[in-house]
Amino acid sequence: VTDQSSSFIDLLIARVGAGTVRTDAVVVDDESHDEALGATAVTPRAVVAPERTEQVVDVLRTCTEHGVPVTARGTGSGLSGACIPPDGGVVVSFQRMNSILEIDEETHLTVVQPGVQLDQLDAALARIGLAYPVYPGEYSATIGGNVATNAGGMQAVKHGVTRHHVLGLELVLATGEVIRTGGRVVKASSGYDLTQLVIGSEGTLALVTEATLKLVPRPAFRATVLAPFPTLDEVASAVPQVIASGLAPSILEYIDMLTMAAIQREYSVELGVPSDVQATALAYLVVRMESDHDDRLDADVQAIAELLVKLGAVDVYVLPPHAAAQLIEAREKAFWIAKANGADDIVDIAVPRRTIPAFMAKAREIGDANGALIAGCGHAGDGNVHLAVFQRDPVARKRLMLELFAAGIDLGGVISGEHGIGTTKKPYFLELEDPTKVALMQRIKRAFDPRGILNPGKIFDLEDES
Amino acid sequence: VTDQSSSFIDLLIARVGAGTVRTDAVVVDDESHDEALGATAVTPRAVVAPERTEQVVDVLRTCTEHGVPVTARGTGSGLSGACIPPDGGVVVSFQRMNSILEIDEETHLTVVQPGVQLDQLDAALARIGLAYPVYPGEYSATIGGNVATNAGGMQAVKHGVTRHHVLGLELVLATGEVIRTGGRVVKASSGYDLTQLVIGSEGTLALVTEATLKLVPRPAFRATVLAPFPTLDEVASAVPQVIASGLAPSILEYIDMLTMAAIQREYSVELGVPSDVQATALAYLVVRMESDHDDRLDADVQAIAELLVKLGAVDVYVLPPHAAAQLIEAREKAFWIAKANGADDIVDIAVPRRTIPAFMAKAREIGDANGALIAGCGHAGDGNVHLAVFQRDPVARKRLMLELFAAGIDLGGVISGEHGIGTTKKPYFLELEDPTKVALMQRIKRAFDPRGILNPGKIFDLEDES
Repeated sequence: VTDQSSSFIDLLIARVGAGTVRTDAVVVDDESHDEALGATAVTPRAVVAPERTEQVVDVLRTCTEHGVPVTARGTGSGLSGACIPPDGGVVVSFQRMNSILEIDEETHLTVVQPGVQLDQLDAALARIGLAYPVYPGEYSATIGGNVATNAGGMQAVKHGVTRHHVLGLELVLATGEVIRTGGRVVKASSGYDLTQLVIGSEGTLALVTEATLKLVPRPAFRATVLAPFPTLDEVASAVPQVIASGLAPSILEYIDMLTMAAIQREYSVELGVPSDVQATALAYLVVRMESDHDDRLDADVQAIAELLVKLGAVDVYVLPPHAAAQLIEAREKAFWIAKANGADDIVDIAVPRRTIPAFMAKAREIGDANGALIAGCGHAGDGNVHLAVFQRDPVARKRLMLELFAAGIDLGGVISGEHGIGTTKKPYFLELEDPTKVALMQRIKRAFDPRGILNPGKIFDLEDES
Repeated sequence: VTDQSSSFIDLLIARVGAGTVRTDAVVVDDESHDEALGATAVTPRAVVAPERTEQVVDVLRTCTEHGVPVTARGTGSGLSGACIPPDGGVVVSFQRMNSILEIDEETHLTVVQPGVQLDQLDAALARIGLAYPVYPGEYSATIGGNVATNAGGMQAVKHGVTRHHVLGLELVLATGEVIRTGGRVVKASSGYDLTQLVIGSEGTLALVTEATLKLVPRPAFRATVLAPFPTLDEVASAVPQVIASGLAPSILEYIDMLTMAAIQREYSVELGVPSDVQATALAYLVVRMESDHDDRLDADVQAIAELLVKLGAVDVYVLPPHAAAQLIEAREKAFWIAKANGADDIVDIAVPRRTIPAFMAKAREIGDANGALIAGCGHAGDGNVHLAVFQRDPVARKRLMLELFAAGIDLGGVISGEHGIGTTKKPYFLELEDPTKVALMQRIKRAFDPRGILNPGKIFDLEDES
């Protein structure tokens, strides 16, 4: 049972300070939602914005004592409803814990607070020739949020996802203990990997108060190639062969015709693709190459261009830097474009790379059978297909979504490649996931959080959350 | 309480078949140990060698019912005692579950049984131009064992460790349920990452009956460079700068003078290093470069050679292929050489790369203070220092080991980079690790294995194991 009395808020204020606890309507309304389609906003009873780990400890101790749910929040750019609190819950906003604590140029690592934004970190690293290469579509996203969802993005095809770059965490457990997992090392075999377990757990196991991240050298040169294809199937078939070539693109994205048209309309990107080619192209592949040597980059771009033509591209365009940057940025905004155009739901199923053509064909079939328009783009190199689903009717839409997820799983895939389950994908997850695994996850949850106060109702439910 | 009666063995035979359960002395003695120094062999009451997952299910159900401990075993090449059963325990040997079930050349993945050996997998992949790039020192090691310890090895500096290459697992839980974790996908955000949790858990959470592994293209060209340095400190200081260069070596090993002398004595490796250079060199750096282009490889080797000289190398030798292969092989056998020379214990501490010089200096100091000889080599690019400790006296040795581990942890490191904790590092782990984390790991263990039958006594103990 949740303690609804105002005395709880008084207690919280007494413990962490009045300036840290906000209950005024403007603040709490602001923290009531993320960017997920179809998730209902819930106004938290209070927003706590700690400045240091000790305050997070106090909040969690108090909430565990009183059985009050706690939901962590970065900038709210998530796409699954995972940072929306349950009724009566407290939001812990990490906006004030936003310092880059250390950059170790020699070991190639950085130590950051969870509220650090990706754009902030990138600006700091650009100055010294390093990069944190996880680029989900939204640069205002925080490291804490990225850890919660195991964020991926366009460069995962070469550099991997959040999971591959987090070396260690400082965590506050629901019961208030502070632990440090992992280390400043690139490998460890010293007990269970608590770091990896917390990554992707959507705030349900512990609150992250610090992260140690692995960095990579920033490549000196890069080039972006755009290849229109007559059909989506040909794009999908080309992808495994581009990977197999060993040319190691840092970005390998597909964009279907509908999405490309919307991107060009909304962002006026000048790609230099003649209108007759545009008229025949039903899908595009965007390939970015990077290197520390401009001659090698040229040779690799030449090689990839020849390969793409061999694989059926109508033509290949090496984009001028400005157009390339615009296209990549517009591609990152594809979700916003879909949203602006009235998309009813989105999907980020990941399937084995080889099965992308089969999955695409199946998705089209499922869309047709359910009277829905499905448009998409995605991280083709990872098999991570992002679809926007247009179907107003909730019953038809739910059936369609379930069929899409089931089709992905049948091919060896997973429901979400990078957005997470949150609340919006939870019904599908619970319907399609092995109940033995869900029960095991629930037991793990209890091992971390005996009273179930951490972000309850995300991914799965516990029997008696209080 | 463990059921010691022979009726338990009869029951096991009845469930999985007589040919699968062995109790004869030759077999059980063979499965009583691994390669750890200082671990006491324990003869299992029976060795079960299943041929299929259903038999593993039957074994675990039976053992959970009767409270009998179960320890998984590959080829027994581990270095921490993790596959040694407790008294009265059953060993599940995966030697007969050794099939490569599938190689998907397009998606770059393979599905294997846990008993598949690294040399077996490498031979199959070499034919099709792919590689599983995790190369711990012992090629007879199995994938199941590699998953249990999160094995690393020389190529981790470029390709990462086991954790970075396992996409999914089939697991049998202690209570007999079979679950499949992850998928045939390179990314997933769909509930807790059970795959990552089981990797490195040393057989204490579940038994692995199948693994889906990510593969990489096999590079066409490679070259190995040997650089003698006047001092170990200069080697250690060179390492972060080699990494920072962006030249991305696939191997970056240091070998100290004592170890190099032993390697050359035992393996008669002809390195072409003049005797006057050998006489002044107190440490060596071994750097392997790889590329799909021979001209790029040449340029990179040239660049790394110049860099090494700038960083203090006495000279730089590009080894002929045969000598290179011999040196790498001999380096892999450094542990065996240390063992043959009477080493009393080994350490595989991982520290932040930048702190290798500080750690080395500290290790020398600790060795001197405790009257011990410490020789070493290691995965310098990972900060993973392998030391052989020569100190006969167990009391002085234990003190020295504890000081070494504490020094590594003080620098931001971990007790083991790749060997695991098992039983031989357990006392140090329990003394130096945060008790809150150990308690959390114990609760996670219970969430998987309520009766504590899976490899009890490894990493930590549970209060009432039976």
